[in-house]
Amino acid sequence: MRLTALSNPCTAAAAALALFSCAEVAFARPSPEPKVPSRVQWSRNRGKKIARTVLQQSLEARQYSNTTSASCPETKATSITAPYENIWAGLSDGEAASVIAWLFGQPALNLTASENATAWDNTILLVELMIPNKTDAVAYIDSGAATPARYARVVIDNRATVDPYFQDLLVGPLPLNNATASYQPLEFPLTRKTEGKVRNVGADDDDALYSAWLYKIGAEMVDITMDLWGGSAMGADNDTLDIWGIDPLWQDDGRIIRWDSFWNTPNDIFDAETLLPLGLYFKSDVTGRDPSQWKLEGWLYNNIFYNTTEEFRAAYWSGAVEKLAANVDGTWAHTDQQGDVLPSDANYPPTTIAPSGSRFSLDYERKYVEWMDYTFFIGFSRDVGMTLYDIRFKGERILYELGLQEALAHYAGGDPVQSGTSYLDSYYGFGPYAFELVPGYDCPEYATYLNSTFYVDETTHTHLNSICLFEFTADYPMQRHSTSEYVANTKNTYFSVRSVSTVGNYDYMFTYSFYTDGSIGVEVRASGYIQSAYYTTGSDFGWKIQEALSGSMHDHVLNFKADFDILGTANSMQFVENVPVSRVFPWSNGKARNTMQLQRSTLTTEDEARFDWGVNSAKQVLVVNTDAPNKWGESRGYRVLPSFGAMHLTVKDSSNLVNAARWAEYDIQVTRQHDHEPRAAHAYNSQDVNDPPVDFSAFFNGESLEQEDLVLWLNVGMHHVPNTGDLPNTVFTTAHAGLTFAPNNYFDMDQSRRTVNMVRINYSGGSAAEVETFGQKAATCAVDFTPVEYDLWQYKGDVVVRKFPYDPNDPYYETDSIV
Amino acid sequence: MRLTALSNPCTAAAAALALFSCAEVAFARPSPEPKVPSRVQWSRNRGKKIARTVLQQSLEARQYSNTTSASCPETKATSITAPYENIWAGLSDGEAASVIAWLFGQPALNLTASENATAWDNTILLVELMIPNKTDAVAYIDSGAATPARYARVVIDNRATVDPYFQDLLVGPLPLNNATASYQPLEFPLTRKTEGKVRNVGADDDDALYSAWLYKIGAEMVDITMDLWGGSAMGADNDTLDIWGIDPLWQDDGRIIRWDSFWNTPNDIFDAETLLPLGLYFKSDVTGRDPSQWKLEGWLYNNIFYNTTEEFRAAYWSGAVEKLAANVDGTWAHTDQQGDVLPSDANYPPTTIAPSGSRFSLDYERKYVEWMDYTFFIGFSRDVGMTLYDIRFKGERILYELGLQEALAHYAGGDPVQSGTSYLDSYYGFGPYAFELVPGYDCPEYATYLNSTFYVDETTHTHLNSICLFEFTADYPMQRHSTSEYVANTKNTYFSVRSVSTVGNYDYMFTYSFYTDGSIGVEVRASGYIQSAYYTTGSDFGWKIQEALSGSMHDHVLNFKADFDILGTANSMQFVENVPVSRVFPWSNGKARNTMQLQRSTLTTEDEARFDWGVNSAKQVLVVNTDAPNKWGESRGYRVLPSFGAMHLTVKDSSNLVNAARWAEYDIQVTRQHDHEPRAAHAYNSQDVNDPPVDFSAFFNGESLEQEDLVLWLNVGMHHVPNTGDLPNTVFTTAHAGLTFAPNNYFDMDQSRRTVNMVRINYSGGSAAEVETFGQKAATCAVDFTPVEYDLWQYKGDVVVRKFPYDPNDPYYETDSIV
Repeated sequence: MRLTALSNPCTAAAAALALFSCAEVAFARPSPEPKVPSRVQWSRNRGKKIARTVLQQSLEARQYSNTTSASCPETKATSITAPYENIWAGLSDGEAASVIAWLFGQPALNLTASENATAWDNTILLVELMIPNKTDAVAYIDSGAATPARYARVVIDNRATVDPYFQDLLVGPLPLNNATASYQPLEFPLTRKTEGKVRNVGADDDDALYSAWLYKIGAEMVDITMDLWGGSAMGADNDTLDIWGIDPLWQDDGRIIRWDSFWNTPNDIFDAETLLPLGLYFKSDVTGRDPSQWKLEGWLYNNIFYNTTEEFRAAYWSGAVEKLAANVDGTWAHTDQQGDVLPSDANYPPTTIAPSGSRFSLDYERKYVEWMDYTFFIGFSRDVGMTLYDIRFKGERILYELGLQEALAHYAGGDPVQSGTSYLDSYYGFGPYAFELVPGYDCPEYATYLNSTFYVDETTHTHLNSICLFEFTADYPMQRHSTSEYVANTKNTYFSVRSVSTVGNYDYMFTYSFYTDGSIGVEVRASGYIQSAYYTTGSDFGWKIQEALSGSMHDHVLNFKADFDILGTANSMQFVENVPVSRVFPWSNGKARNTMQLQRSTLTTEDEARFDWGVNSAKQVLVVNTDAPNKWGESRGYRVLPSFGAMHLTVKDSSNLVNAARWAEYDIQVTRQHDHEPRAAHAYNSQDVNDPPVDFSAFFNGESLEQEDLVLWLNVGMHHVPNTGDLPNTVFTTAHAGLTFAPNNYFDMDQSRRTVNMVRINYSGGSAAEVETFGQKAATCAVDFTPVEYDLWQYKGDVVVRKFPYDPNDPYYETDSIV
Repeated sequence: MRLTALSNPCTAAAAALALFSCAEVAFARPSPEPKVPSRVQWSRNRGKKIARTVLQQSLEARQYSNTTSASCPETKATSITAPYENIWAGLSDGEAASVIAWLFGQPALNLTASENATAWDNTILLVELMIPNKTDAVAYIDSGAATPARYARVVIDNRATVDPYFQDLLVGPLPLNNATASYQPLEFPLTRKTEGKVRNVGADDDDALYSAWLYKIGAEMVDITMDLWGGSAMGADNDTLDIWGIDPLWQDDGRIIRWDSFWNTPNDIFDAETLLPLGLYFKSDVTGRDPSQWKLEGWLYNNIFYNTTEEFRAAYWSGAVEKLAANVDGTWAHTDQQGDVLPSDANYPPTTIAPSGSRFSLDYERKYVEWMDYTFFIGFSRDVGMTLYDIRFKGERILYELGLQEALAHYAGGDPVQSGTSYLDSYYGFGPYAFELVPGYDCPEYATYLNSTFYVDETTHTHLNSICLFEFTADYPMQRHSTSEYVANTKNTYFSVRSVSTVGNYDYMFTYSFYTDGSIGVEVRASGYIQSAYYTTGSDFGWKIQEALSGSMHDHVLNFKADFDILGTANSMQFVENVPVSRVFPWSNGKARNTMQLQRSTLTTEDEARFDWGVNSAKQVLVVNTDAPNKWGESRGYRVLPSFGAMHLTVKDSSNLVNAARWAEYDIQVTRQHDHEPRAAHAYNSQDVNDPPVDFSAFFNGESLEQEDLVLWLNVGMHHVPNTGDLPNTVFTTAHAGLTFAPNNYFDMDQSRRTVNMVRINYSGGSAAEVETFGQKAATCAVDFTPVEYDLWQYKGDVVVRKFPYDPNDPYYETDSIV
């Protein structure tokens, strides 16, 4: 029997998208909007005029070049039908188009199509599925109630006003019909009750900010920028400098203040701009929508503050200003191979193959997965990307929902730009940045890949192959034991689901893994370019890592929602801590013995429900159902423990964030589940940090947590103080963080005993007497091995499907480019 | 080109042992001595008469059955010659034999050959290489001085006395000649200055303890054991019960006290005895060597203490004693496959292959390894198993020594046996228990395997294939970054060295891993059978996990020595902590901003050198050389951080251990390197816990640690509260702990840029414009895949080479079995 180890993700993609065959789709190119070198540039491009080149779908099938001499029918996941609908999967193309069409029919919204809109028009920023309330979802999946009514969540960018704001709307029910359809402010999931509205402090970022302000200042300073760095930042074609600054903007005293900095631009393809700060900063009051009323409030250079441009210029040309070195692009900032090639390195490194192909099943359309004893559904949204729902093991739900809530990168520095930067990445969104994965690199080549879609400008964009699913066998076993008579050993084959979101300079790799013992892993790794600081003001805030560069210290804090349902929704939190004791026993002759014991406690209310992992890893955190004892009387449950990078935000009461990221303050936070508290954060929390749409701390209002439906909000991350090893990119080896959920008295015994991928060898007299392989497949076969395994020339980027006007019988594709 | 992915570890073994060809070695069977179900049984068997079946070596070569149609010449590691001698590798067979012969020629030692020895004879317990002092080693490897003089470390078991003791001796120099050879007490590496002597509190364990004491008590109680459990423990052939107890023995008030318990024995091959406690305990005063003077001091049953046998018997037969359930062996305690086989599970799971074979080089004889930019030597000793020496990256030494020092399993419980158990596993030794690894399970099948040897009874035992070395490619990359124009991605191929020691019920898997960015991982995982408690007294100390069983809480604490040499031996410890601050900046208009900054400090003396990882993972621990700044002025160094399971012992001032494991009290401890402080513990610390041979706390005497030769003593482990998921065996998924050493400003940039196993794809217009693979091998080839990949019928166990009398021209093999 011959098998090939090569998967054909295109097939999976085709099945999932169900819209195009595995044709030459070279017409689809990555959108320049979401894939940009830095966040600020996306923001800048958001309103730019896009030239669309519409290409017809090619129907000529193109095979992958590395087909082998034998077909591989088992390679992709077996196609199955989910037991019920994926009510979290997102809107269909038709639903999204119908919502857009209907919204444009509502005169009160005063909408303008994105391609015609100016900064003073209202546009639709987002149309996606309103994730159903858990109450309704559970009634459907557990009790056979009707599918929850479908609604669209819509975000309108209301800019046709001097007080621009974002507004969340609920539109539905779907399918829309004129008799029942309505829109209403989507307020109930927010803690701030202002009809789903929050101001937009960057309404003019895309137009006026650069043309009427930043480039004007750049032009005004061109004498100095030319003198210092031989370049300009004034919106000219031959600019070699860039200007951008803090996020969120300062929001003190009713003013909107920004600090910006000059940056060198890379001279090659590499995305190195965040490594090229130039150390000149300026402060602007950009309150209001009239740039003529904006004020330049000072300059900072070499840690000296100048109140006005004139003051700085005078000092500069008087020679009183020390001219500092520039950070200039070079191979130190390039990720390509460098140095002599090591002798063996050009040989193939070890690689994992799947000789039986995929051993899991997938409802491609509904994104429902079955692997061994596990089942779950995959959801996907703009704000947080991939979320898993209804995770079951042996048919019993362990988690109703598991997914990212928000990622904070809180910088600190001696300069105002680093000090003022605290990215709340859901503002940019993890969905739009979940790019195509690189087979053989981001995931094993044999992985099955799914697409993800997201809304932009009345269209649904699709990122091909942006979610991967695969089994992997660890380099260590699940279990082993040796005696003088036998050795028993079980393979550790696990299943992972992964996506990567590159939000500006950083690539976040999210992986959920499932193990045969019932344990579940949540992992995030970070790579990509650091955002660095100019070195003069950096010594208290980082290492000097280049001529004029400081690694800019920052805390990455990522919050995950884990809505456990242990044998139903009524659950409790139990703590079991190892504590030292000195104790007299009936057998200790009256003497106290220094030993230890368990200290058990229960979390009673939300008043105590924000806490950290204990010192010395001594406190176990358990989610249990005290009404569901196992046969020995212990509560069945799962233990929650950090596997790496357990942490919370260092900064106390951050000046940058105020109330916008209260979720980052503790390692673990537990709330009673409410349909109106679905997410720890809101994408626009940065727009009003004092009074954000979702203030997480408001979730804590003393409710009982004993045998209630509990949600755990868990932080992981990394206190990152970049050193030279972060150049050119941070590497995944140490930049990772994770959590493990492990069964604790949940089953009667270890569940990994179910696998046949184990061996017992009995021996006697110096040789094996019995080799028990439990029915493992035993035939020998051959695998074709292609070293650059996947035809990477198939890598594409995203595909756009136009929605408005929309003709379901004539989908077509287009490619975006900036004009 | 066709390649096979199958390695032939036998070839490696042959090269390493250089004593036998890859012949049928079915005559070598595992020794029953080191491979026993529980520690106590090994102790019991230690003095038993062994029947030896001497078998001649078969010269008929047997090929592995799974040879393929093509040879694979590149599969095993390339053979090279180390740049200098492995001065840590151990004695040669000839050296060991010469030492034994010479010792038997010293009348003052009054030695008896092991096979003739009684409990009242002196025997040689250990002959191995005395690891050279670092001072001499570094002079040799760095400065071209002569190889350090070779000495044997010998441990004599002096039992021909009423005050039996162990004594460490130094014998040499080697080669021995009568003019210069001498033996002397080996005292300088010990903190207790008693000529290397420590009492032996178990001198009669192997003979008198069972025959004259425990079985006698078992016989005396047979009426009750038959009534309760239908069995006996009296040394009879049809015994179905076992008796054993605490370790270390109680050593209070000048008395030696033991507590023992009855255990059921397994009824199948599975090593389940530690799951079968019966809940009846008795206390004995076994002070002195005359069993007739020993005293039974009471019984405990159902948490009620009875002062005498008579009292307990009277209560029992009066019906006043509640008869409790027994723990009985069953499938719940068996590791074999259980439950319905899942549909896809009988297909091949993913597996890693090495299509180019091994990409590293090995001096098989000297155990010297070169992989990519790394080189190191492997040492091996009885007490701690595998240790790595002179670990270099790009030619510069990072660590002089990296290895396990001791593993503590400190139990606690409501019964005296669990409460009294605090195994110090080097007493048993990690070397003798480093068994043959199972290819395809313990290590990838294509790994290269080395043998290890250890001394037993005037012979050198060899465990075949007990160390494995392999490359592996992780399921995630080393680095990635995406933009709108390109994606760059680097594979994470790393190199690991692994051994597994099964010390009684637990299997410890030790793995050292090397990454291309210069980071090094230390990992230990634990599987095997838990030691459990009878449930009646367990509720404060564990979960009820079976009918009459409690998981017995215990702390695993494992201490690793990491002797860093960062660009020489003069190093310092630097701390960099993220701390919240409220700070006014030149640009903040006089307002304080809530932010964070770095707080740097240096460890000055040993007085502050015992500490824990900081809260919130906020404190970085760095080993730096402040005299070796990088070109930006920062000290080059390595960061030390826990990757999982950072912890220290919960128990304060343990009654069981007193001064025997002071190393377990903190997460991190730093000392100035001294030749006389080579190890944190001594194998016989358990013999005198009040005044042990090595009291680690004595290392701390206020010495300066600034730019000195530093040693880090790092604890990892697990607070283990076994739950039903630990039945039948603890699994490796959560039972693991580790450390990472990562370069910090050591190099100018990330070193993983050197590999060619990366890709950059440039794209434009929806298709790839460039696929740069940097010279990776590109040909397609085929791999024969054998699902039960390795012929597990080749699994053997250990091989014995007789030493005394010794004929180097006639090595032969024998097999041990208990008569």
